[in-house]
Amino acid sequence: MRYRDAGVDIDRATAIVKGIGRLAPQTWGPRVLSEIGSFGGLFEASGLGASPVLVASMDGVGTKLAIARETGRWEGVGEDLVNHSVNDVLVQGARPLFFLDYVGAGRLEPEAVLGMVRGMARACAAHGCALLGGETAEMPGTYEPGDYDLVGCIVGVAEREELLTGERVRPGDEVWGLASTGLHTNGYSLARRVLLDEARLDLRSVHPKLGTTLADALLAVHRSYFAPLWPLVQTGRLHALAHLTGGGFLDNIPRVLPPGTAVEIDRGSWAVPPLFGLIQELGGIDDLEMARVFNLGIGMVVLVEATWVPDLVDRCPDAVRIGRVVEGDRQVHLLP
Amino acid sequence: MRYRDAGVDIDRATAIVKGIGRLAPQTWGPRVLSEIGSFGGLFEASGLGASPVLVASMDGVGTKLAIARETGRWEGVGEDLVNHSVNDVLVQGARPLFFLDYVGAGRLEPEAVLGMVRGMARACAAHGCALLGGETAEMPGTYEPGDYDLVGCIVGVAEREELLTGERVRPGDEVWGLASTGLHTNGYSLARRVLLDEARLDLRSVHPKLGTTLADALLAVHRSYFAPLWPLVQTGRLHALAHLTGGGFLDNIPRVLPPGTAVEIDRGSWAVPPLFGLIQELGGIDDLEMARVFNLGIGMVVLVEATWVPDLVDRCPDAVRIGRVVEGDRQVHLLP
Repeated sequence: MRYRDAGVDIDRATAIVKGIGRLAPQTWGPRVLSEIGSFGGLFEASGLGASPVLVASMDGVGTKLAIARETGRWEGVGEDLVNHSVNDVLVQGARPLFFLDYVGAGRLEPEAVLGMVRGMARACAAHGCALLGGETAEMPGTYEPGDYDLVGCIVGVAEREELLTGERVRPGDEVWGLASTGLHTNGYSLARRVLLDEARLDLRSVHPKLGTTLADALLAVHRSYFAPLWPLVQTGRLHALAHLTGGGFLDNIPRVLPPGTAVEIDRGSWAVPPLFGLIQELGGIDDLEMARVFNLGIGMVVLVEATWVPDLVDRCPDAVRIGRVVEGDRQVHLLP
Repeated sequence: MRYRDAGVDIDRATAIVKGIGRLAPQTWGPRVLSEIGSFGGLFEASGLGASPVLVASMDGVGTKLAIARETGRWEGVGEDLVNHSVNDVLVQGARPLFFLDYVGAGRLEPEAVLGMVRGMARACAAHGCALLGGETAEMPGTYEPGDYDLVGCIVGVAEREELLTGERVRPGDEVWGLASTGLHTNGYSLARRVLLDEARLDLRSVHPKLGTTLADALLAVHRSYFAPLWPLVQTGRLHALAHLTGGGFLDNIPRVLPPGTAVEIDRGSWAVPPLFGLIQELGGIDDLEMARVFNLGIGMVVLVEATWVPDLVDRCPDAVRIGRVVEGDRQVHLLP
């Protein structure tokens, strides 16, 4: 018996690693000292700042992967993962340095894996972030053939004095929202259940309420807010940023609220994109649950004092005022 | 419909996050600035050295998880993941700084997840490594109920001048091996196929050739080589280290060989533990395939010039001379 007979093909994995070896170095700047194939990626850390703090986050893209699999469109979920991760360090006041990925599968198919890596490499390059390393794991039995999990770890850096901690948030601050491109990477298990399993909508048909195919709407790439927000973060004028990921409005905004504050969100202050309305209507989901699971069209929330709102609007023309900071106990109040 | 109806229970996930919030901080030293619940973990990077290089690696534990599931013993795979990762940065000459984990599952069961985290926290604490953050993802459909994937990302640091690159390896160097505790975290798909699916051995029975239950033999925790080897790494006297993970002897040793060198391994120079013999015999696996998949009882390979062998033996009394560096083209020759 050979390893291959147990469902693990080292040769196929090696071919994938070689493909990755062509893609990843395109993201490397002068700080990357390693070559793919060593046991770990090497990143020069001298001169990162006067008082550098590393900001690290680990995440996945969830069952958006199931839509990628059904459509054979893999690059987008790679971009999703990097953009999601970049947003997670951005909200702490950090810029990305490097990224590592993990692809788990029942069977590693080069087209799928290299598609994801191509998307990750493109998104890394767009952020000056090095795709420093990764792992592919073939685990027959744990994953069904065709199923994948995709996990990423990002490390960024911020100056200690410039970390965004939320401690300057105070009643009277304004709450602004930046548009999402769709579900980003959250709520896909519920969306798939409602749209595909129950309503039996076709991924490839143009849906009249969406104006695109359902696949295009569901695979829209998670927006990175780095380009518009990083210059503002560097001014030190923002009080806090909240990335609306799993947990939606209700669980994410409190993560950056200091004691004694709460947030009121005016539900009518922005137009909720039709994809969310479709899910809510077909699934019979109440407003509170929608706000707890989905971003509802707002992917990033900015807490800022009124004085600096013109700067925000200048940098982010699509920003919308969606609420305010009030006194309270770190809750989020959804107003009609 | 609620999110829970689609198989994702935010409340159960929140309970798990709270459990993690008790375990992870036990691993935090003064450099950790964040609290669990923020969007990323914060690690103070000032004063890490004169010319610090970050060494990062991403890995999983593979289908050893299936044995953990079948026996309900989860802590060990958590330790496995951390120890494996520590070894991967150690072989580059680095000590660990922080670690992040990802647990993916069809259904997140607190006992399983917190068991794994308890193991990771224990192994992190043993290495002065901070368990800085992580993610749990419930993905019904991708994973079968009861199935898990466990992924970790480690970041370590080395002085640039002290990186172990293998460039000093030369013909005449000795090759020494340090014992493994078992399969470590590689080859489980093949081992399970042979031992459980085909030979139908019982995990809970004491096997006469092993002297322990099969479960105990298969779940033996991946050994960390940090304690014995780190003092030697710091002396600058080692030429290279190779961690025998997926790919066994044949694929891992060449990763640290410079052009013009090869390695001869004397297969008879150490006693291969009975677990490997059992797998080989029951599976009818040839010697070459065994050496390509399994560590065969040697988990770490040390390349050292003869002068410094007494230092090695002093620090690692269980080290065995298993071969030598010769001229060649980065191959590994297995001698009888």
